[in-house]
This record gives sequence, structure tokens and C-alpha cells, in this order.
Amino acid sequence: MSTSSTRTELSALGEFGLIERIASRVQLSQKSSLRGIGDDAAVIDPEALHQVITTDMLVEGVHFDLSYVPLRHLGYKAVVVNLSDVYAMNAQPRQITVALALSNRFPLEAIDELYDGMLLACKKYGVDIVGGDTCSSRSGLIISITAIGAVQKEKITYRNGAKDGDLLVVSGDLGGAYMGLQILEREKAVFQGTPNAQPDLSGHDYILGRQLKPEARKDVIDMLQELKLQPSAMIDISDGLASEAMHLAHKSGLGVKLYEEKIPTDPTTISTAREFNLDPTMCALNGGEDYELLFTIAQNDFEKVKGSPHFSVIGHMTDKADGYQLIDRQGGQHELKAQGWDAFLKK
Amino acid sequence: MSTSSTRTELSALGEFGLIERIASRVQLSQKSSLRGIGDDAAVIDPEALHQVITTDMLVEGVHFDLSYVPLRHLGYKAVVVNLSDVYAMNAQPRQITVALALSNRFPLEAIDELYDGMLLACKKYGVDIVGGDTCSSRSGLIISITAIGAVQKEKITYRNGAKDGDLLVVSGDLGGAYMGLQILEREKAVFQGTPNAQPDLSGHDYILGRQLKPEARKDVIDMLQELKLQPSAMIDISDGLASEAMHLAHKSGLGVKLYEEKIPTDPTTISTAREFNLDPTMCALNGGEDYELLFTIAQNDFEKVKGSPHFSVIGHMTDKADGYQLIDRQGGQHELKAQGWDAFLKK
Repeated sequence: MSTSSTRTELSALGEFGLIERIASRVQLSQKSSLRGIGDDAAVIDPEALHQVITTDMLVEGVHFDLSYVPLRHLGYKAVVVNLSDVYAMNAQPRQITVALALSNRFPLEAIDELYDGMLLACKKYGVDIVGGDTCSSRSGLIISITAIGAVQKEKITYRNGAKDGDLLVVSGDLGGAYMGLQILEREKAVFQGTPNAQPDLSGHDYILGRQLKPEARKDVIDMLQELKLQPSAMIDISDGLASEAMHLAHKSGLGVKLYEEKIPTDPTTISTAREFNLDPTMCALNGGEDYELLFTIAQNDFEKVKGSPHFSVIGHMTDKADGYQLIDRQGGQHELKAQGWDAFLKK
Repeated sequence: MSTSSTRTELSALGEFGLIERIASRVQLSQKSSLRGIGDDAAVIDPEALHQVITTDMLVEGVHFDLSYVPLRHLGYKAVVVNLSDVYAMNAQPRQITVALALSNRFPLEAIDELYDGMLLACKKYGVDIVGGDTCSSRSGLIISITAIGAVQKEKITYRNGAKDGDLLVVSGDLGGAYMGLQILEREKAVFQGTPNAQPDLSGHDYILGRQLKPEARKDVIDMLQELKLQPSAMIDISDGLASEAMHLAHKSGLGVKLYEEKIPTDPTTISTAREFNLDPTMCALNGGEDYELLFTIAQNDFEKVKGSPHFSVIGHMTDKADGYQLIDRQGGQHELKAQGWDAFLKK
């Protein structure tokens, strides 16, 4: 679990020793972070901005598998996943709190590695760890992170603001994180069958990175600001494009029409999907964990995103009565579903 | 685990069904809660106040034992514990987020009971549940709550503001929650030896209430406001008076002197402690979970708390060189310790 050869039991430090060790590694960089770890609560100066807040819990054996996820990557990803939710409100994350429960199989060095990853993400995104809790668990590792962000009231972007006719836009490309997971699961199965086998991860750097070290799209929020582009609705893609597009439509009281040929997928995602006998479109629609941003814009904002390598217009919002539709490459119309892609595959 | 005879598996609802069920039970009462459950993040209007934020994680088998803690009480206490940290900053809690991980031994009815308790606490303290996460665990129940509060900048009360000579004041009485726990542990042991035995909890209502359904001292914060009393430092008592008094002293770069005879203890705490052959003072100093507020005030504010049934002046801050002292009823001086009370007991 740890790359270090030293093993220090947590009991040797005690709770306060551990808090002091963590506190000593954390530096506050945000002017709005008035007080961090070490009091009953952290103190934040909102600086006349609205605050957004989001929480995610990650459970070992449910959300991650430490047999192939290094703790450093896990820490990084745990932070990024939360920041992604803040960006999806068109807000800038500023603070996080971190609650950890660990069984006694984790030495101090494991916590250090987890914090290495969390602090790396915090540094990259300009976020402060201002508080938290570290305690024992009976089994495994549980991480609960709460992120706070700030935003001007008029820029807040909810899921329910889309209008009929708005264009549906997605950042980056989709399906890569899911294919990265397939590679990792395959190599784990090989390893379990033949413990001396070396995992074959070559040629899969991009999709492995998408799975193991995802990034939140801060750059997209910055671009929207530069483009003076206010999305009417926005969500981040954690569960897959289909599910998130349907959330935007449902919350906005609309239907949505997606075009398969417009869905951005990386060439390595496509080739790996083929290798696994999977449909790349299915991976993009239902794979999840891509942490791209999906948003709607007014039609007369089209010029602002047209031709951008960062954005793909993949469909548009419709009247509610039209439901959730996927138009395939041949022009065939299918009902969009969040799970059970089978109906489409069988046609 | 559930008092209801119905058992509905969580898998029958699915993740989104569960979120919608929880969302339907939650109502926003705070004007500052602009958006609650159901978007990528909740949105809070700080209304020109500073925000405080605190997180606690509770793990089954580590922090609570469901063999004698009803889920409703657990939910109530999980919220109260967090609010207590907000009050300890002299702030008013306004929002919480709730992250839950549960194994499949918990049916939907168990989540409902847990939320019953959480919502009861939220209603009592005027706090909104604005977000969260519910997921699977491999074993047991884990609850992570983050509380947000609001406070005017000049009223924020840190742990490190105490001055040499300041009076040390505590609200309520101490040691009761610890004695309640002893009763529960004793009856559990009896029950395990003789499964048909009825637990004997009679006559222990007060201390059982202190353990099972603690309250956070919102009333104290309101009183401080009415008294125009600004504490120089404050902390809530979760780990025991000794530990918390030492925190205030350490953070403020001071020493502290505590008088045993001034420590407030309820008569039933004293009688139960005697029954268990425990020193009531030890229970107050090291028992923990009382969730009273411990704060320091300037000497010339003494008149504001003098004679109040809610406050006890139990000591004062000293020069750092004087260390942490406990003066016993006979005037003997002892080094105050956060744990290992043995040294004092042996004298």
C-alpha cells in the first residue's frame, strides 16, 4: 500500500499528534480562508460572494480498489471529484474539509500519501484544506470531502435553467475514464490468476490517466468567463452523459435530443472499446467518471463555442413532450436511457 | 434495528429514488439557503456574515453502538455534535450536509429513522439539510456531517484569544454523558450474559439523556448576545473538561488553573459515579461528550455571569510558566492531565 519501507502505527501519534501533523503540512493560500485546521470550526470570509457547498463520500471496495489505485492518486481524485461539482455551479472552489476513517491496517505513511495527493490537487486548483476529522474504521478506508466555492449571484448556474431550443454543449471527450477502468480490471484479473505476471498497461496512458488522475474543468469555467458566456444550465459528468443530459432536461422541465455522431470520444477510447467489444458511444453515454462539464447555451451564443477544440455541441433541448432522444449515425431515433443500453445495442 | 415491521431494500429504490425520497422530506427554512439538495452543490447567501465550517465523522463500532443507540437518537446526536462546534465559534449554524455510507443490512426504514432524528435536530436548531451523499459501505454505518454557520466578524471566538487573568467559565454541568454511557454499557453486558433480562435504566433519565440525546448550547450563544458578553476564547466540551481547558491554554500561549470544587456536576452524576466506584471529578474532567461550552472572559465581565444558574466560573488563565493546574478541594495542587487521571487518584 505504501511505497515507503517505514511503517508507523497511528496509535504512536495519537489523535492530536495526527491533527498537528496534518495541520503542519497544510498552508492556507486563499485570502478568504481566515482560519483553518485547529479550532472548533474553520472561518471563511465570503467577500460578498455567494457560497456553494457539496459533499462526496468515497468508500473502499465500493468506489475504489486499492489493489490498483495508489493512495496518492486516490487523494488527488477524491478532491477533484468534489471540485468538479463546484465548477458545475460556475463557481470557483476555495476550501475543502476532509473526513477520513481508516482501519488499523493503514500506517501513518499511508495517510501521508493520501494527503500528498490531496495537497497536490489543492495546490493545482488553488484550494485550502481548512478542516476535517480523522478517525478509526472497522474495515477499510472512507473519505468524505466537502468543498466550498464562491460565485457572484448572477453567475450561479443551476441544472434547471435550460430553455427549449438551447444548445447542449460538452467539454473535452467522453468514455475514457470508463475504458481506463476496464484496462485496470482486466490486468487485476490477470494478476490474480498469475501473480507473477506484469500488468500490461502500455499504450493506454490517456485513458488510464482519465481514470486514475482525472482533472476538474477549471479551465472551462475560466473560458466561459472570458467568452462572456453564461450557460443556462450546467452539470458535471460523473455518471455518464446520458444520465446527466436527462438530469438537465428533467430539472428544466424539457426534453433533450442528442446526436451520436457529435459525441466527442478520444481515438484511444474508441480503439480500446473495440478491443473489449464495447460500443464507444455506450461508454461515453453510460461510462461515467469523465468529470467533463455539460451545459446548455442560448442558440445565439453558438458563435462563442463554434470551432473551439474544447467544446462540442452535441444536441439541443426540446419540448418536454419530445422526451429524451438519441439520434444515431444513420439518423435513427432511440429513447435515451441512463442505464440498460441494451435496447439500443440490439437494434 | 428498525421499530417498523416493514423492510424495504435500498436497492428497490435505487440511488436517485433515495435522493428524491430524502429531498422530499427536507424543507428549507433558512432565508440564506438558496438551493438545497438536487443540484451539483447547494447555494448559500452569506448575507454579509462570515461563515464557519466544521466536519465530524461517526463510525459504527467506534463512535456508537447500535445495540443500545436507537437510530433516531443517533441521527439527532450526529447533528447536535456538529452544531456544538459552530456555537463554539460564537456563530449560528444555518446549514448542514449529510454523507452516509451503509451496508445492506440497513433497510430504507433505517435511513428514515436516522433522518427522523436528524430532521428533529434541524428543526429544533433552525438548520437546513442542503446536501449530501448516500452510498454503500462494506460494513456498518458511517455518518459524516458538515455544518456551516454564520457570524459577524467581530464576534468570532477562537480558541486562542484568552488573556492571562481571564476567568474560565463553563455552561451547564459535566460528567453526565459519561455516566450515561457507563449505565448503557453495564446493561448491555447484563443483556449479553442473560438475554432475557430487562435493562435496568430506571432513575437514570438525566444522564441517559445526556448520552443519548445531547443538546448543543444555542441558548448560551443567545445569552452571551443578550449579556453583551464577548468571550475572549471558546471551545465546546467533546473530549472532557481537562483536555478542552488545556486546548484553550495551549492555543492562547497561557497556563490554566482549575478548581475542583467549582466544577459543576449534577447530583445524579455524582451518585452514579459513586455506584461505579468512579470519582465524579474524574468523570467531568475526562468523560467527554457533554457538549457544554467552555470559554474565557475578562475579569471585569464577572458581574455578567455571577449568580447565573447557567454558568460556573471554574478557574482562570495564568502565565504559561505556571502550566496546567488542578486545585483539589483540600487546596492541593496537581498537574492537570487530559488522560491518565491515575496520578491524581492515587494521591
